[in-house]
Amino acid sequence: MSDSRETVSSKDTEEVIMEATFRALSKHGYTDLRMRDIGEEMDLTRQVIHYHFDGKYDLLSSFLEHVIDQYEGSVELDADADPRTELDARIDQCLFGPEFEEFSHWDRMKVYHELYTHAQNDGDHRQIFNDHYDRIRGSIVEVVEDGIECGEFQAVDAERMGQLITDVIHAARGRRMALGHEDAPEEARKAIDEFILDSLYADE
Amino acid sequence: MSDSRETVSSKDTEEVIMEATFRALSKHGYTDLRMRDIGEEMDLTRQVIHYHFDGKYDLLSSFLEHVIDQYEGSVELDADADPRTELDARIDQCLFGPEFEEFSHWDRMKVYHELYTHAQNDGDHRQIFNDHYDRIRGSIVEVVEDGIECGEFQAVDAERMGQLITDVIHAARGRRMALGHEDAPEEARKAIDEFILDSLYADE
Repeated sequence: MSDSRETVSSKDTEEVIMEATFRALSKHGYTDLRMRDIGEEMDLTRQVIHYHFDGKYDLLSSFLEHVIDQYEGSVELDADADPRTELDARIDQCLFGPEFEEFSHWDRMKVYHELYTHAQNDGDHRQIFNDHYDRIRGSIVEVVEDGIECGEFQAVDAERMGQLITDVIHAARGRRMALGHEDAPEEARKAIDEFILDSLYADE
Repeated sequence: MSDSRETVSSKDTEEVIMEATFRALSKHGYTDLRMRDIGEEMDLTRQVIHYHFDGKYDLLSSFLEHVIDQYEGSVELDADADPRTELDARIDQCLFGPEFEEFSHWDRMKVYHELYTHAQNDGDHRQIFNDHYDRIRGSIVEVVEDGIECGEFQAVDAERMGQLITDVIHAARGRRMALGHEDAPEEARKAIDEFILDSLYADE
C-alpha cells in the first residue's frame, strides 16, 4: 500500500484484498482459511473485506475469477506468428506460466488446482472453471484449425486434440504440485511434441 | 453389519470403519469431515474408531491406502494377452474403473482426487500417492516395453509414453468430477488411441 495517496479507490482496495487473500491462502490453505487470516495480511482494516464481499464464499469466487483473469490475460502472441509457433507459445504459457511481480505462477496454480478439485461440490465455481476451460481449450483448437486450413497441419480432429493437450497440461501442473514432480511440465512438453503434435505432421 | 456374529474381528472392524468413512466423505467432503460423522455411519460404537486409529489424520491415511489397494487390486489381466490387449485393458481399467459392490468407481475417485490435491500440503499422503503413481505408471511402461521387445510396438521412449498416458487418465477423471464432463473418460480413450498410441504403430 502506498502511503502517499490519501484515498484508495474501490478497484485498488479489491486488488489489495485479492493479494492479501493470496498470501493468506499460501499460508493456511483453502480448507483452513478464515476471513481474519486475510485481514491479517493487509494494512487496511478488516472491515473493508466485509464491505466489498458478502462473506468468505463470495470473496473466494471473486478471487478465483481474479486468478483466472491474470492467467488468461498473460498470453502474449505475435499476431503474424505461424500456427506452429502460436501453438508452441500457448502450450508453453499454460505449462510454465507467465512471470508476475508478486507470487509465482506456481503460487497461483496451487490455489487454482485446490479450488478446481473443490468445484465438484460447488456449482458456481464449477461454472467459472468450465467457462475458463472452454476458452483455454478453444484457443488451442482454434490454432490447430488455422493450421489445418492453411495446409500446415494434417486434418486431425482439432477439438479432440485441443482437449487432449489441455488435459495433459492440467495433469502435469497438478502432478508437479501434488506430488512434487518438479520436472513434470518439461516432461509433459516433450511428450506432447513426441507423441501428440507428431500427428499434425504425420506425412512429413 | 451382520447381527449373527457375536464377535467382530479387528480386520472386519477396520473394513466397517473404512466403508463408514466412504459414506461420511461422500456426504460431508474431506474439508468438513468430523470423526463423529464417520461414527454416525456405523452400527458399531464410535469408540472403536479411536481404538483403531490415532485421530482423523491417521484414519484418512489408512483410508487412502485402502482406496488405492482396492483400485490397484482390481486390475484383472489374462496372462497370455498380447501387449496391445494388455495395454488397452490397463488404460480402460484406470479410466473407467472396476465394479464394486458398494460405492461406484467414481465415489472412490472423488475421494482419491480430493486427497490428491491436498497432498501438496501433506508429506505422508504425498508419499502414498507417489508410490501408487510409480506402480500405475510402471505397469503401463512395462507393457509398452514388452511390446517393443517382441517387435509389436515401435521403439518409443516407454517411460515418457507411460507418464503421458497416466497424466491423461488422471486429468480426464478429474475433469469428469470437478467440471461434470461425463464423457471425459470416453473422449480421453479416443484421444489416446488417435494421438498417442498411434506412435506405437507409426510404420504401419
